[in-house]
Amino acid sequence: MARLTDIGWEEFHALPLEAKRPYLARAEGDGMPYHTLFAQQFDRPVLERLCALSNRIRFINKSREGALYLKSLLAHKRAMLYFSQPSSRTFLSHLAACQILGLTTGSVRDAATSSEFKGESHEDSIRTFSSYFDMIIMRSPEQGLAEKMSWELSNSSRPIPILNAGSGKDQHPTQALLDIYTLVRSFEEKGGIDGRTVTFCGDLKRGRTVRSLSYLLTNFRDVKQVFVAPKELQVPDDVIATLEAKGVRHEISDDLRAATKMSDAVYMTRIQDEWDDSKGESAKIDTSRFKFGAEELALLGPDSIIMHPLPRRDEIATCCDHDPRAMYWRQMRNGMWIRTALIAGTFGLEKSIMECGY
Amino acid sequence: MARLTDIGWEEFHALPLEAKRPYLARAEGDGMPYHTLFAQQFDRPVLERLCALSNRIRFINKSREGALYLKSLLAHKRAMLYFSQPSSRTFLSHLAACQILGLTTGSVRDAATSSEFKGESHEDSIRTFSSYFDMIIMRSPEQGLAEKMSWELSNSSRPIPILNAGSGKDQHPTQALLDIYTLVRSFEEKGGIDGRTVTFCGDLKRGRTVRSLSYLLTNFRDVKQVFVAPKELQVPDDVIATLEAKGVRHEISDDLRAATKMSDAVYMTRIQDEWDDSKGESAKIDTSRFKFGAEELALLGPDSIIMHPLPRRDEIATCCDHDPRAMYWRQMRNGMWIRTALIAGTFGLEKSIMECGY
Amino acid sequence: MARLTDIGWEEFHALPLEAKRPYLARAEGDGMPYHTLFAQQFDRPVLERLCALSNRIRFINKSREGALYLKSLLAHKRAMLYFSQPSSRTFLSHLAACQILGLTTGSVRDAATSSEFKGESHEDSIRTFSSYFDMIIMRSPEQGLAEKMSWELSNSSRPIPILNAGSGKDQHPTQALLDIYTLVRSFEEKGGIDGRTVTFCGDLKRGRTVRSLSYLLTNFRDVKQVFVAPKELQVPDDVIATLEAKGVRHEISDDLRAATKMSDAVYMTRIQDEWDDSKGESAKIDTSRFKFGAEELALLGPDSIIMHPLPRRDEIATCCDHDPRAMYWRQMRNGMWIRTALIAGTFGLEKSIMECGY
Repeated sequence: MARLTDIGWEEFHALPLEAKRPYLARAEGDGMPYHTLFAQQFDRPVLERLCALSNRIRFINKSREGALYLKSLLAHKRAMLYFSQPSSRTFLSHLAACQILGLTTGSVRDAATSSEFKGESHEDSIRTFSSYFDMIIMRSPEQGLAEKMSWELSNSSRPIPILNAGSGKDQHPTQALLDIYTLVRSFEEKGGIDGRTVTFCGDLKRGRTVRSLSYLLTNFRDVKQVFVAPKELQVPDDVIATLEAKGVRHEISDDLRAATKMSDAVYMTRIQDEWDDSKGESAKIDTSRFKFGAEELALLGPDSIIMHPLPRRDEIATCCDHDPRAMYWRQMRNGMWIRTALIAGTFGLEKSIMECGY
Repeated sequence: MARLTDIGWEEFHALPLEAKRPYLARAEGDGMPYHTLFAQQFDRPVLERLCALSNRIRFINKSREGALYLKSLLAHKRAMLYFSQPSSRTFLSHLAACQILGLTTGSVRDAATSSEFKGESHEDSIRTFSSYFDMIIMRSPEQGLAEKMSWELSNSSRPIPILNAGSGKDQHPTQALLDIYTLVRSFEEKGGIDGRTVTFCGDLKRGRTVRSLSYLLTNFRDVKQVFVAPKELQVPDDVIATLEAKGVRHEISDDLRAATKMSDAVYMTRIQDEWDDSKGESAKIDTSRFKFGAEELALLGPDSIIMHPLPRRDEIATCCDHDPRAMYWRQMRNGMWIRTALIAGTFGLEKSIMECGY
Repeated sequence: MARLTDIGWEEFHALPLEAKRPYLARAEGDGMPYHTLFAQQFDRPVLERLCALSNRIRFINKSREGALYLKSLLAHKRAMLYFSQPSSRTFLSHLAACQILGLTTGSVRDAATSSEFKGESHEDSIRTFSSYFDMIIMRSPEQGLAEKMSWELSNSSRPIPILNAGSGKDQHPTQALLDIYTLVRSFEEKGGIDGRTVTFCGDLKRGRTVRSLSYLLTNFRDVKQVFVAPKELQVPDDVIATLEAKGVRHEISDDLRAATKMSDAVYMTRIQDEWDDSKGESAKIDTSRFKFGAEELALLGPDSIIMHPLPRRDEIATCCDHDPRAMYWRQMRNGMWIRTALIAGTFGLEKSIMECGY
């Protein structure tokens, strides 16, 4: 069994992502994560267990008795949400996940707070705050900070789990989990994900969402990935290289309508112009052909779905919002359920939930 | 039974306020509101039931057992407080109301958050956030947003109630409810509100408080309304027109002392100079005769009361604070009770509370 | 029995600190504080009871059943954290303390909030907010505000306790309590605090921490205090005068290594340059000899400890962090336990906790 207490920070940090996986798992050996840092630490069996656990939690939560049972499970624990990079959406869904399990929470949400004590290192801040809680859910603009703190806390006299809710441009593992869960749920009574065609459209160059989901989809059999974008925003070469190394079918395209016709899921994304350099290059790109509207909707198959990580601007027309195939609102809510499942798994509650009488 | 799912947004929005009332009531037909948007949706029977419910909650909450009973009622539900316009006072009293009923809460309080995702519509933000909660309590500088979201959510696959905690210059219904509750409570063992004289003093032109309370008072029999203000800040014509249409006794005055002598309640308000144009016209108005101090206190009847929505500046002298007729501190606390009653009513708990054994 | 309702504000405010003590105690006469305002209100018997209560709470909280018992104790109460001066560290540890006892909380953390209502006095704000809660935990840059509000609320129709979590440059009593608790705990199986040598090092002129802890240590027998600092930052004369009046052994020094060799505890502090005048005088002071690193660690006795109120900059080298004598992380966590004990004591729960079966 690999343990973070058996390896130095430099050595751990230098490992390839896949090789880090066993160090992040629960010491109890049930395969569930202890620290959740990146999408690559999840293989298909764990993904499927998390989806099943989410479904179960969603069902149990429907009745008052069931909701109160879930809320009793972690009523003796407290979680800190440390968001030095603000995000209401990710914050609130993690908060709701904690609340469903009865975890009491404290939070730091103010960007200013992280620089509050000039001269204190982030490691010191987080370690101090961690004194008061049993889990840290953190979002930070600083790439790698969640990983560093995971090692640091596991090597302290009071180890507690870290859940990465977004670090830099780098990783946002729970977004990838909720995307997979949405696909699993949408197709669970229609034969599952295997063999499906998933189209990504929009800014595929700069969205960490696309990168993570593309990777996780390789865990499933024979899923074809189509990348539709203006050439300036096409998916990076290393994503394609990964697909080729794994023998995954894929296609580069600039024709959303053609892709829509043959897709089981169309995953729209926003132009991420916050990463523009000072010249505002996004504004110069013609993105008019990469929007989903009434005409695309007419081409979409009756069992296919539209996804979006939100927030959106105009890349999906609001006239699609009430269509039963528009899955983006439910996708948001799925994020709450899968995060609940993930936290439950982290605290070893999978069995208590799967086998309870509710 | 009128339902928001049976009417389009444009058509609903164009209805007169009174005509909107049935669309906002609970589908169960018990007359309690589902969405709470404006003061005009409350008629006298519902006002009296809410006051009775508030009294009952206040009493039950006195004992530890009673408080724990109340806290169990909504322990399986979660509410979001979405305050894109900051307000500690209104925020904290709604929060406390949720906590009394055991509702777990999440919040967005930062003004900056509403513009966090540039390009996302408010409708999208709120609908997304609503995915995680069972009720939204919202304050917004945008007039009509709460009404729009009520229609939108009622027409979604996951309807949840909206409670308007202040929208623009427009509506702040729970402030009007707490004012009514304070009057009802103050006079409940002295013959009630009917036949009383209520004086409004201060900035009657720009305060939504005065407008809403003046309207709600027309639900009671023979209440005389006196408006004392410098002429530049007198009550708007349409308020007077409403009173005249309903045959309500009223008086325009600039003599606070004369009004104090004959009033059962003197409702003081602050000069709302935040609505001043750039020339700072408020500073030019002589408001010295519209302040309540020791001399006015001496003129006030022994059973009469002083109210103020707070915050105050110097329009009530602090020497009045310890007088038993100074009702403004209790008025604040009443706000917590009536909001608790309102939320309880929204979730269909009136009977469980009125008839419980505590 | 001295009561705040029997004395006017001016008269109370003018009393020496020691003479204020009885006015702040619980009316039940068990010696526990009702309002907690300054370190000087704690004598040795109460300090020892609070430390014993902290130990007990820490032990009970280890089991799920114990944690749920503690969380039931104040489940019917609500506390407000009013932090008009932001501080994540102090905020989160008080929050955690509330949560351990089941207190539901509301908070005001934004510095901007205190000026939100221009023209409203702080007294009015706090009194209004207090309407909604059963306790106020407050931090304010305004010296004496907590004391004023204690008198004010005790003389209102709805008295609730105030816990001062830091007021101006003045007082931060729970910091002093956690320091004492850390010393008590570190030496409890090694003969206690009596007779020990405690060295303070760093900015002894401007830290309220040093001042309060130095005072509290005079409650114990024969504790020697050593003050190591550059002469510009040495401990103020009045602190020394207090020690001399009480016949406490002490020493002024500029040699950290010599002091380390003979100390049972070395209390390092940060240069508080936020109090610098505009000329940045701290930067001109040579502080290089007032830092604790590998060489000092080598001189420290095997049973001695290093403390720091945190945040730190470079006054303790990170190479000390994993040494078992480095007590500063545990010191932080002790802060949560002693605050829990203090709140429990304030609400009369000492006996329920000391004598429970967990």
